[in-house]
Amino acid sequence: MYRYKITIEYDGSNFSGWQKQKNNPSVQESISDAIYKFSAQKVEVCGAGRTDAGVHALGQVAHFDSLKDFSDYTVREALNFYLQNSGIAVLNVEKVPDTFNARFCAKKRSYLYRILNRRAPSPILEKRVWHVPLPLDVNQMSIAALKLIGKHDFSSFRAAECQAKSPIKTLDEINISLINQEINIYVSAKSFLHNQVRIITGTLVNVGLGKLNPEDITQILSAKNRTKAGPTAPPFGLYLYQIQY
Amino acid sequence: MYRYKITIEYDGSNFSGWQKQKNNPSVQESISDAIYKFSAQKVEVCGAGRTDAGVHALGQVAHFDSLKDFSDYTVREALNFYLQNSGIAVLNVEKVPDTFNARFCAKKRSYLYRILNRRAPSPILEKRVWHVPLPLDVNQMSIAALKLIGKHDFSSFRAAECQAKSPIKTLDEINISLINQEINIYVSAKSFLHNQVRIITGTLVNVGLGKLNPEDITQILSAKNRTKAGPTAPPFGLYLYQIQY
Repeated sequence: MYRYKITIEYDGSNFSGWQKQKNNPSVQESISDAIYKFSAQKVEVCGAGRTDAGVHALGQVAHFDSLKDFSDYTVREALNFYLQNSGIAVLNVEKVPDTFNARFCAKKRSYLYRILNRRAPSPILEKRVWHVPLPLDVNQMSIAALKLIGKHDFSSFRAAECQAKSPIKTLDEINISLINQEINIYVSAKSFLHNQVRIITGTLVNVGLGKLNPEDITQILSAKNRTKAGPTAPPFGLYLYQIQY
Repeated sequence: MYRYKITIEYDGSNFSGWQKQKNNPSVQESISDAIYKFSAQKVEVCGAGRTDAGVHALGQVAHFDSLKDFSDYTVREALNFYLQNSGIAVLNVEKVPDTFNARFCAKKRSYLYRILNRRAPSPILEKRVWHVPLPLDVNQMSIAALKLIGKHDFSSFRAAECQAKSPIKTLDEINISLINQEINIYVSAKSFLHNQVRIITGTLVNVGLGKLNPEDITQILSAKNRTKAGPTAPPFGLYLYQIQY
């Protein structure tokens, strides 16, 4: 048996998300179908993290097992051939020991959230950024973001349907930058709660709009109540950026 | 009569180009329709430059006349309302004297050509870059590019259907940069021949692939023969970047 680690980019727009679902196109199933087409093996593709409908990935990682021994190059070329025009591309393939597990061995996950902050929408960045037409105060957003770093009970930043056992997570990094009219929010942690990055983003946008003060973040955290935080930012601005092992 | 100068971004993918055409969607007609919807006036929209089918714009400029006096803000908001989901957005509106002409007063036009140079395609940048999977030597491309700067007979870099009276043009700038795996070619001139930027790009890519040497550029120029230059790069990597007055 041979185990392959694959790094994947995808445009989440046309998928119901990473996870296989009945009657809905998923990234996981599309990759599984492509593996079947080139290797005639039905395999389970195990991803490092689930992404919701519309969420993109620049560096999702997954693994699968094959009875046949292919070169890394062959696997990548064959998968990209069968994934043509699917909205998915395999960036890298690496044979790994069978102790490697894309989900359980991940030490750090990072996400990027892209906001376009200008009056006019951008046709070029359609479905690639969240367009916020009102002016955002990036400095205030950065001050607020600092209060989220570290180990906290993130119950206020968690979707109702989140299945994680504990709401306690450690946010390692959060960086906000402004390039031209685009605000990038980069976050990293060992793992995240469901919708955590999107709720953090929606809350920071409320700070940027002046609806919340940076100091309010501390109270929102201690309230442990989803209704105290801001809205869930739309999926199409979010990118699963990198998985580190 | 009031003359308005508008700056426009568009995704060229779904248009037959800037120029109005029978039975085909054009950017010019879409904007003209939007002006009609909000002002009940049929107007001619005069653009700084035509773009071909599939070519994008980040800063196309056009002008039109209105019998009614609207604020710049009103024009922009109304046009963007009627242009929602059309692939076109108006970035800026400015009332100008009627001596201003978007086409004839332009002093400098600049274009950006984006190439993704890596093995795997990019679903996120689909229809936004030209994907060249073989490695390109950016240094050789830059050396070759320098030979195009200045006043030359660009007959070798001109589409057969080009309607310009003279093939002699002055290329003011050409800069090539590599950021991550993306090569950006930025060019500027008072005006360009039809397909000039795309043929320059196709030729520089041949240099990057080692099919041509930088020194060959001088001979290609002096041959004044389209068949001596490289292929016409695809439209979807090209962006009309800025018009200066």
